[in-house]
Amino acid sequence: MFELNPVLERDSILVGHFLLCQLRLINDAQFPWFVLVPQRNDITEIYQLVEGDRQLLMAESCLLSETLHDAFSAAKLNVAALGNQVPQLHLHHIVRYTTDLCWPGPVWGQFPAVSYTKENLAEILQKVQSLLSDDLKLPSNKADLYY
Amino acid sequence: MFELNPVLERDSILVGHFLLCQLRLINDAQFPWFVLVPQRNDITEIYQLVEGDRQLLMAESCLLSETLHDAFSAAKLNVAALGNQVPQLHLHHIVRYTTDLCWPGPVWGQFPAVSYTKENLAEILQKVQSLLSDDLKLPSNKADLYY
Repeated sequence: MFELNPVLERDSILVGHFLLCQLRLINDAQFPWFVLVPQRNDITEIYQLVEGDRQLLMAESCLLSETLHDAFSAAKLNVAALGNQVPQLHLHHIVRYTTDLCWPGPVWGQFPAVSYTKENLAEILQKVQSLLSDDLKLPSNKADLYY
Repeated sequence: MFELNPVLERDSILVGHFLLCQLRLINDAQFPWFVLVPQRNDITEIYQLVEGDRQLLMAESCLLSETLHDAFSAAKLNVAALGNQVPQLHLHHIVRYTTDLCWPGPVWGQFPAVSYTKENLAEILQKVQSLLSDDLKLPSNKADLYY
C-alpha cells in the first residue's frame, strides 16, 4: 500500500488521483502550486520508475501543466523534482507570474507559506477538479480533502 | 534550423547530442550541473512538445539522471524546467550533495558561477561523454566544445 511522506501530507491537500499520481495542492496561497506524487513506495528519482510509470508521469504532468497554464494565465510554469528535503518523489508544478513575490527566482525556501482561507481553498480545488474531471478521480468524501 | 538561446550558449558547454536534446554542461565548477535542451524552436514548456518528443525527453532525462547519479555518487538529483530567465525549454539536471554550498536549498540564483579550469573541464566532459557514448553523438570537432 502506498505511503505518503508525512511532510507532504502536512503541507498539501489532496485534489484527486490520476492513474499514477496523487494530485495535491501546496497549502500556500501565495502561488498556485501543485505536486504530483507517484503512488509508488521507495522511489526518490524519476529514473527509478518503470517505463510504463514514466510514461504515465509524463502524460499526467503535461495534462496538469497545460491545464494550469491556461486556467491561471501563467507567465511560466516551474516543473521540478527536487526532493532535497522530502526524498519521496514528487513533481512540483508552480504557476509563476512576473509580478509574483519571487520572480524571477525560484520559490522554494523563500517565504513562509500563507495558508488558504476556507473559501479560497474551496474555490481553487473546485476550479482544478472541474477542469481535470475527465482524468482525475476525486476524493471519495469531503474529509479526504484535508488529508 | 534549431537556434540555441544566447544565454544558454554563453553559460554552458556542448557535451553532445542525443536524438532530441543537446546535452550541455553549465560552466560552474561548484556543481555537476547539466541541461538538456530539446532542439525545437519556440517551445517554452514541456507540454508543448509533441508526444514523440515528450517520450524522447523522458528517455534522455532518465538515462542522463541514472548516469549522473551513479557516476557522481549523488545524494539527490534536482531535475527541473524553470525558464523564468531563459524561456527556451531546458531541463536542468543537477547533482546535489549534503555537503554542497546550497544544500538543502535550490542552487539557482544563489552563488555566482565559478568557471571550470581547462583541466577540470576536460576531465568532466570526457567522463560524461565516455559514460554516454552509446547514445550521445559527440561534437564533430574540438572547437564545438566551446559552443
